[in-house]
Amino acid sequence: MNSISKRAQKFLETPPAQLAPHFACQSDPFNPKANPEGYVNFGTAENYLLWDLLESKLNSLDFPSEELCHYQPMFGTHSLRTRVAKFMGAYAGVSFLDPEQIIVAAGCSVVLDMITYSLCNPGEAILIPTPYYPGFDSDLKAKAEAKVIPIPLSSAQNFALTANLVSETLQTARARGDIVKALLISSPNNPLGQVYEENLLRELIELTARENIQLIVDEIYAHSVFGKTPFKSALGLMNPHPKHVHTIYGMAKDFGLSGFKVGFLHSLDTELIAAMRMLCLFGPVSTHTQTAIEQILSDEPFTQNLLSQNRARLREKCAFTRAELAKAEVPTYPAEAGVFVWADFSKYLTHPTAEAEKNLAEILFKKGKVNISPGHFFHAGEPGWFRICYSYSEARLGEGLRRIARVLDLVR
Amino acid sequence: MNSISKRAQKFLETPPAQLAPHFACQSDPFNPKANPEGYVNFGTAENYLLWDLLESKLNSLDFPSEELCHYQPMFGTHSLRTRVAKFMGAYAGVSFLDPEQIIVAAGCSVVLDMITYSLCNPGEAILIPTPYYPGFDSDLKAKAEAKVIPIPLSSAQNFALTANLVSETLQTARARGDIVKALLISSPNNPLGQVYEENLLRELIELTARENIQLIVDEIYAHSVFGKTPFKSALGLMNPHPKHVHTIYGMAKDFGLSGFKVGFLHSLDTELIAAMRMLCLFGPVSTHTQTAIEQILSDEPFTQNLLSQNRARLREKCAFTRAELAKAEVPTYPAEAGVFVWADFSKYLTHPTAEAEKNLAEILFKKGKVNISPGHFFHAGEPGWFRICYSYSEARLGEGLRRIARVLDLVR
Repeated sequence: MNSISKRAQKFLETPPAQLAPHFACQSDPFNPKANPEGYVNFGTAENYLLWDLLESKLNSLDFPSEELCHYQPMFGTHSLRTRVAKFMGAYAGVSFLDPEQIIVAAGCSVVLDMITYSLCNPGEAILIPTPYYPGFDSDLKAKAEAKVIPIPLSSAQNFALTANLVSETLQTARARGDIVKALLISSPNNPLGQVYEENLLRELIELTARENIQLIVDEIYAHSVFGKTPFKSALGLMNPHPKHVHTIYGMAKDFGLSGFKVGFLHSLDTELIAAMRMLCLFGPVSTHTQTAIEQILSDEPFTQNLLSQNRARLREKCAFTRAELAKAEVPTYPAEAGVFVWADFSKYLTHPTAEAEKNLAEILFKKGKVNISPGHFFHAGEPGWFRICYSYSEARLGEGLRRIARVLDLVR
Repeated sequence: MNSISKRAQKFLETPPAQLAPHFACQSDPFNPKANPEGYVNFGTAENYLLWDLLESKLNSLDFPSEELCHYQPMFGTHSLRTRVAKFMGAYAGVSFLDPEQIIVAAGCSVVLDMITYSLCNPGEAILIPTPYYPGFDSDLKAKAEAKVIPIPLSSAQNFALTANLVSETLQTARARGDIVKALLISSPNNPLGQVYEENLLRELIELTARENIQLIVDEIYAHSVFGKTPFKSALGLMNPHPKHVHTIYGMAKDFGLSGFKVGFLHSLDTELIAAMRMLCLFGPVSTHTQTAIEQILSDEPFTQNLLSQNRARLREKCAFTRAELAKAEVPTYPAEAGVFVWADFSKYLTHPTAEAEKNLAEILFKKGKVNISPGHFFHAGEPGWFRICYSYSEARLGEGLRRIARVLDLVR
């Protein structure tokens, strides 16, 4: 007999799309010297550009007090939340954020699972523009049991998000009987690398207020911005800041610390904060890691240098990647942020279908030993787009791009 | 309007019983020099006896590699799981445990929430002998939505757990229509400080096998054992080890690291392990803390000394506490393990009722400024029992016990 519950079985049957190729690559990873024939993974949005800056810092952290061995508020120590409030306030251009409005949890996935649990009853819906980060499916649906309603963006409109598109999708969903609780955007956008204009963000804040739904803004790439459009945090646009706008940040991307699983939420909604505080019983960050993050964020010269180096390095890697892809006749969306580029392989599909897209991904993986993420992972509306992460060493990035070009020569 | 969901509201309405007094004490905590009039908290099972041993260790840990900055298996790195398997195998007397049978998650509460989610559909039941650790209510019911069915133990039988009692409760529950999925015991027992005899454990393993339910054994106090009865892990009793027995351990108590939120599960049930691995997406331990725990467990002389000091110190504190309580005419259950003693204040109740028990707790808290946990937190069947934690400094322990004696003089 099966020992496990129906809900656990269901959860097992829908693993996040990006996990299988990630672990397939991990089992035989490319290394320029030790394993030059191994898989090159461009599928996982991890930032491998910062170790030279991080190593000595991570090896010089203190464990400062006995009290940190013991139970602290599960939603973050007061001193870490104070520091995070200062950090988020600074990038949002807000002079003071209240630490009582900050939640610390074990990564942005945990924050998203918890906020979905807190805002939605099972089956209630959250709107997300597509293409969207595949992790949102597991974060919102797998355990928290919300429904995701896509807002399809099109290449013909240059993947532009507009308040009108949101509004239309919302009305259609409501007409169908869906209870829509929130709009979720990643800002800067994953996988597009878009930086949203201030005006659009204001319109979305106003639209969601008018429609009485919540706005969740995932700003995990806030400091991975390197293009012309200035990044604006949703936190800093309105005065006073509205209660229905909830902002997420984390240490995974801009700080290159995805393994640390540290995510933050800012919200003025005291009921939501109360629920999130309780839910943190089941997704806390160790006090050991909390004090580490606090020490990192407290060293402002270190942090400023890390983030400015990060932007410069990403700018260079992005330009290099787009140029190499252009040589292989793969057009790319002009990314201004993130650790990836959204690339159009449609001319290399045998047919304009999802099936053909899967086939191309498989050929790249099997013949080229390179993993890039096909658009259907992101619920993209048009076949042939792929997300390519580039925040890797020169050797790994160069090798992977050469392999892509080689495979495209074969299927041309 | 309420922005939060019904399930979040419900969750908010049932906070773990022990949280409110814990945080009330935290807001004005006793300190022999800085705040001698502050609250003495004997309500939270934390081990404050090990800082002199931990401090230099925690300040000499390395962050050894770039890969640890990045995503690792969410259920624990292979090297930490290997080390945990060795540690758990050693205390269970098993020569080899497979790291693939180990899960690492963000504390034992998280492990319990996840295993409940994995074994039970909402409303399905888990049996627990009472009195039981109040955290089990939130761990099993709050989010995972299982039902808890108490197995009442009585002082007349010296709180002895028997296979017969389990069997009777199980049959009654089934006759009522409950779907019982598991028996959960804490071994050594919290709050009783009982160390279970090997025979009883075998009988429970056999009974649960026969009845086709799972057995969850929470061994978080495995190394806080200092009495005559030798501790036996459920992991080491049967050969081969049965698939329906799932063993939990963690760093909170024996290692004095409750703030680190590190818990482990061992199980041979591959389906359960698969589900738990996926669920760890939402309750991971940072790689930063994982490598710290791995370094601690790898230093065997350090660990052996810490655990042996821990046992000696607890033995002394327990004896002192029981002697002081005896002077105040408070009989105690003869604890052989744990960081607490189960104490009979029934002669100090105005009436033999839950109400009178609450009143006494309140008088102790308000007049004595000392927090001990009343039996109803533990679903104890008889009013007047309290759990008193004693794993504190001499100053704190002495002061709290004096305050208890003083209040009892008043109500005598």
